[in-house]
Amino acid sequence: MHMGKDRLKRLIRAGRGLVPAHKVVRGGHLVNVMSSEIYPADVAIYEEMIVAIGDVTDYIGEETEIIDATGKYLAPGLIDGHLHSECSKLSITSFAKAVVPCGTTCIVSGLDEYISVSGIEGLQEVFSEIKASPLKVFWGAPYKTPYTFPQSTVSYNFTEETHKEVQTWPECFGVWETVREAVIEEDDDTLGALAVAQANRMPIFGCAPMARGKDLNGYLCSGVRLDHESYDHEEVVEKMRNGMHMLVRESSVTHFLKENIRAVTEVNPALARRVSFCTDDVTATDIIEKGHMDHVVRLAMKEGVDPMTAIQMGSINSAEAYRVDHLVGSITPGKIADILLVDSPETFKVEAVITNGKLVSKGRDLTYELNAPKRSAVLSSELKCEKTTKADFEYRVDMEEGTAEVLSMNVVGPFVRKRRDVTLTVENHIVQPDTDQDVLMVSVVERFGRNGNKSLAFCSGWKLKKGAMASSAAPDDNNIVVMGADANDMSIAVNHLIENGGGQVIVEGGKIVEFLALPVGGIASDLDAKDISHRETLLNKAAHALGCDLQEPLMYMFFLPITAIPDYAITDVGPVDCIALETFDPILGLNPAK
Amino acid sequence: MHMGKDRLKRLIRAGRGLVPAHKVVRGGHLVNVMSSEIYPADVAIYEEMIVAIGDVTDYIGEETEIIDATGKYLAPGLIDGHLHSECSKLSITSFAKAVVPCGTTCIVSGLDEYISVSGIEGLQEVFSEIKASPLKVFWGAPYKTPYTFPQSTVSYNFTEETHKEVQTWPECFGVWETVREAVIEEDDDTLGALAVAQANRMPIFGCAPMARGKDLNGYLCSGVRLDHESYDHEEVVEKMRNGMHMLVRESSVTHFLKENIRAVTEVNPALARRVSFCTDDVTATDIIEKGHMDHVVRLAMKEGVDPMTAIQMGSINSAEAYRVDHLVGSITPGKIADILLVDSPETFKVEAVITNGKLVSKGRDLTYELNAPKRSAVLSSELKCEKTTKADFEYRVDMEEGTAEVLSMNVVGPFVRKRRDVTLTVENHIVQPDTDQDVLMVSVVERFGRNGNKSLAFCSGWKLKKGAMASSAAPDDNNIVVMGADANDMSIAVNHLIENGGGQVIVEGGKIVEFLALPVGGIASDLDAKDISHRETLLNKAAHALGCDLQEPLMYMFFLPITAIPDYAITDVGPVDCIALETFDPILGLNPAK
Repeated sequence: MHMGKDRLKRLIRAGRGLVPAHKVVRGGHLVNVMSSEIYPADVAIYEEMIVAIGDVTDYIGEETEIIDATGKYLAPGLIDGHLHSECSKLSITSFAKAVVPCGTTCIVSGLDEYISVSGIEGLQEVFSEIKASPLKVFWGAPYKTPYTFPQSTVSYNFTEETHKEVQTWPECFGVWETVREAVIEEDDDTLGALAVAQANRMPIFGCAPMARGKDLNGYLCSGVRLDHESYDHEEVVEKMRNGMHMLVRESSVTHFLKENIRAVTEVNPALARRVSFCTDDVTATDIIEKGHMDHVVRLAMKEGVDPMTAIQMGSINSAEAYRVDHLVGSITPGKIADILLVDSPETFKVEAVITNGKLVSKGRDLTYELNAPKRSAVLSSELKCEKTTKADFEYRVDMEEGTAEVLSMNVVGPFVRKRRDVTLTVENHIVQPDTDQDVLMVSVVERFGRNGNKSLAFCSGWKLKKGAMASSAAPDDNNIVVMGADANDMSIAVNHLIENGGGQVIVEGGKIVEFLALPVGGIASDLDAKDISHRETLLNKAAHALGCDLQEPLMYMFFLPITAIPDYAITDVGPVDCIALETFDPILGLNPAK
Repeated sequence: MHMGKDRLKRLIRAGRGLVPAHKVVRGGHLVNVMSSEIYPADVAIYEEMIVAIGDVTDYIGEETEIIDATGKYLAPGLIDGHLHSECSKLSITSFAKAVVPCGTTCIVSGLDEYISVSGIEGLQEVFSEIKASPLKVFWGAPYKTPYTFPQSTVSYNFTEETHKEVQTWPECFGVWETVREAVIEEDDDTLGALAVAQANRMPIFGCAPMARGKDLNGYLCSGVRLDHESYDHEEVVEKMRNGMHMLVRESSVTHFLKENIRAVTEVNPALARRVSFCTDDVTATDIIEKGHMDHVVRLAMKEGVDPMTAIQMGSINSAEAYRVDHLVGSITPGKIADILLVDSPETFKVEAVITNGKLVSKGRDLTYELNAPKRSAVLSSELKCEKTTKADFEYRVDMEEGTAEVLSMNVVGPFVRKRRDVTLTVENHIVQPDTDQDVLMVSVVERFGRNGNKSLAFCSGWKLKKGAMASSAAPDDNNIVVMGADANDMSIAVNHLIENGGGQVIVEGGKIVEFLALPVGGIASDLDAKDISHRETLLNKAAHALGCDLQEPLMYMFFLPITAIPDYAITDVGPVDCIALETFDPILGLNPAK
C-alpha cells in the first residue's frame, strides 16, 4: 500500500465526496467498535479504503457499485492476534481461502516456520504470496531462530543483525513471540533483538505461559507488551494488572478461552478493553468444522461476553495491542475496508466478506478463483539430507547383551512430556524399543544440508505396536521427526520424505501406508482445507491402526522438537532436558547379562 | 534513555528481584489504570523504571530508599496531551518547575514556537533543556512551519524534507497539529509530511475545530488519528464515532471541558476509553491559581466523571492515543517511574511527585534546585530587524484629505475576529486611527532578518484610548505584533523590544510603562511562574489603564497572526482573510474631501 502524496490527495477528495465512491455498502447496521454502538449506517469505499460512514448518499455516483447489506450487520474484519498459519499445513493461499470466508481478514504472524526452512529469501516470497491474497499479515520478526536451547539446526539463523535490517521493512510490525526463557536466560541475540526493537519503538510480542510473580516482573522489564498464553484466568488477571495486553488463545490443541475469559466475565469486566483473541495453531479440520475467528467470537459470547465486547476483542482490541488500529480494526473513515456482513451480532454468522475494499467471499467460499503462485527453488521442498539406513535408528551401546536403564520421554498431553524410567533389553549392542512397555525410538534428522545431524532417543505415550511415522513439518525447526517401533520402517519413512520432497508419512512392514505431500518448503500444501483435513484424517487413522490412541498422533510427535515445552524434547542435536536447557544421555545405566 | 543490552540485563535482573530495588514506595494504595482497580500495593523502582508492584518485600535491600506513602494514593504521572508550553512565556525549566508539582510529568508538544524563532538548532538546545528537567516531552514534528496561509515569515521553514530527517529522531513521536485547512487545501508540504509519517507509522496529531460531515471524512482520510479541539460535545461524539481519539481541551482561554465532557457523561460512557485531556495554552497565573493537569482531572470529576475514569483520561488514555503507553501512563513493571502521591482519588491533591524514579517535588515546589541552562546565541533573543519610525505605523494613501472606508478586524473573543466596516478620517495622506470608534492600528514586524516585512491594518475591540502595546511572543510566527492608538508610541514599543531582545511592552505618551523581558528566543523567560504571573498582571493592568477592557489584552493581540482563526488575521505579509486564505486591502474605498 503506497502512501504517497497523490494517493493522499485522492483519498482526501474521496472523503470530502468530491469524487464518487467506488463502492457503497448499503442498508446494514454498523457495529461501531469505536463507540460501542450498533445503528443503521452505510459505508462508502474508495479504492481499498473506507471514506465515509453513516448517510453516504452524496458519495454515490453513476459508477458506484452498491453492495446490498439490507438486514445485515457490518462488523470489522477479525484479527487473529497470534498465529502460525504454517502449522495448519495450508499454504498462505490455501489458508486465506479457508479463513477469510470465516471473517478473518488479518493475522499477526511470525511466519517463522517459513523462515526456519527457507530463510529471508523464502520469507520475501511468502510476502508476495500474501499481497496477492485477500488476507493481511502483520508480520512480527522472530526474536531469533532457532528458538531452541541448546541451539538446534535450521536453514536460517535469525540474529540481532537480522533484526537491524528487517525491523525497517514495511511488513514488520514487531518482534515475534519472545519467549520468557530467552529473556530470563539473557540470551544475547534475544536481548539484541529487544534493544533494536525498543530503539525502533516496535512492539514486543511475548510468550510467557505460567509467568507469575518475580518471573513475570523480570520478563516485563524487558519491554514485552502482550502475551497469548495463560494457563488459567488468575494468570490472565495478574498479567493484566501488571500492564500486559492479553490474547486469549483458542487453538485446535489447547482450548483456553472458556477458562481464561473468566478473567473478564467473573473477575473484572474492566479488563475487557485489553483482551483479544488468537488461535496460535489451528488445523484444517477445525477450520472446516468450526470456523476460525468467527468461532472464537461466538465462543466468547457463549461464555458470557456481550456481543459488542466479543466483537471488539476480535477486532479493535487486537489492532490497538499491535498498534495497527490506524489501518484496521474498525469501520471508520481512513481505515482499510475490511468489512464482514453478518446475520446478527449475537449469532455472528459471517455471510460475506469485504477485504481491501473488494467483496471477496460469500458463504464459505471466495467469490473468485485464487491460485497459489509458482514457487521458486527456495520454497521448494528439497530435503537436503542423505538417505538413512536402518542402523541410523538403532541405539547402539558398548555392551553387547543385557539391559539398559533408559529415560523415556513420556507424552502426557500435547504440551507436557514427563520423565519415565524404563528397563530395556540390549541385544547385539542395540537397545531395543519395547512395544509392550510402550517405548519407541524417536529421531530428528537435520534436513537443511548444514551438518547432517541425526539424534536418537526413546519415547512413550504413542503406543505404536509396529511401523513408523515421520514428518518434515515439525515446528519450530522443521527438521524430519520420525518415531517408530521398527528401525527399518523408520528409515523407510524418512527416505520416503526425502524422495518426495517432504510431507507426512505412515509406514508399516516396509510399506508406505499413507502419505501427505507438503511441497511448500516441506511444511505446507496448496491443497484446499477440506482436502488437507481429509488427508490428515487418513494419516491419523493409519497411525491409530498401528496402535496409537492419541487423538492427534502426528501433532503430538511433531511438537517433540520444541524445547520450550516441559520437561523433555528432542532436536537434531539430541534429546533435551527443557528445564536444565541441555542435552542429556537417555541411557541411565547398563546391566550386562550375567 | 539508552536501551542497550546491558541496560536490559540490569532491568530484567532487577525485575526478578536478583538485585535490590533502588527505591520502594511503601504503604500506599495503587490507582491501577490498567485494571481499573484501587488496592494497597507498594512499588519497587530500579534506576528510573518501575520493576514490581504489589508486595515488593523481596525487592528491599539494605541500600533501598523507602519513600513513605502511608495513607496516600499512587497515581500515574499525568500527561498534557497537547500543549504549547512556550505560550505560558515560561521556559521549559520554569514550566517544569511549575507543572511537575501539579502532577504533570509528560507533555505532548510541537515545541513549535521554539522552532519558529530558532529552527532545528534551537530545538536541539531545547531537547537538552528538557532532558535536564523532571518533565518529559513527547515531541511531534510540526506538519510545517509557518502554519499560515498565505505563507508568512519565520526563522525556519519546516518542510517535507525536514520531516524525512526529524521523524527518525528518538525525540519524535508524531506529526504535530496538522490543521484541517492544510489537509483540505492539499498543501504540498503538509501532504508530504503526512506521507512520510505514514511510511514511518508515526501517529498524526490533528487540529480540526468544527470539522463535521464530509469535511471531517476528508480530513480523516489523510490519516489523522486524534484531535484536541471540538467546540461542543456533539462534535466530540461525531469525531469519536468516526474513529478519532479525542483530547478535551481546557486551556486558559477556552474552557471546553464542562461542555465537551457531556459526550461521555450524557451521551455515551463507552467513549471514555479514547478521551483524554490537554490544556493547549495555559498561563502562569492559571497554573499558580488552579494547578495544571491535576486541575483538569478534578474538573472532570466535578462534571460527573468517576475518579478512576478521570485519572485514566489524564494518564493511560493519552499514552495510548500517542502510542507511548509502553513508556508512561500506568504504574506497572517495565514503565518509567512517574508516580504521584495524592491525598485521595476523589479530591486528587498532588502531594508529592516522582519522575524518572526520583522524588522531585513535595507540595508545590521541587525538592531540589533546578537552574535553567546557559543558552547559546541561537536561542538568545536578538531581534533581527531594523529600528522602526513613527511613519512605519501610519497608513498612507494617495488621497491627501477626506475619509476612507476601512475594514477593521474586530475581535469578539480570543478565537474569533469579525469584519467591521468603519469610516475613518484621512489627513495629510494618513488614514487616522479613531479611538472614539475603537479603531486602532496594528502591525506585524518581521524579526528574523529574512526580509524586513512590516504589515499594517486596522483593528477593533481593544478600546485603547492612547498608547501602544507590543509583543515578540506571538504564536505561531513570533514576529513582533504591535497595536496602538498612536504611531509614535507603537514605534517606541517595537524599538524597545528590539533594544532589549524581545518581550512584551506597554507604552504611553512616549514612555515605557511596563516591560517584561523574554530573553529565551524573545518568547520565554526563566522567571518562576509566580513572577511571570505577577508581571503579566502588571502588563494587563497597564493595558487596562490605556482603556482596554478585555481580560487578556495582550493575548488577544498576539493571537492576531494566527490565520487559522476566523475570519481575519494579520501576519508580516499583510492582513489576511482567513476564509479566502489570502491577504486583503483594508481600504475599501476613499472619499476625497469636497
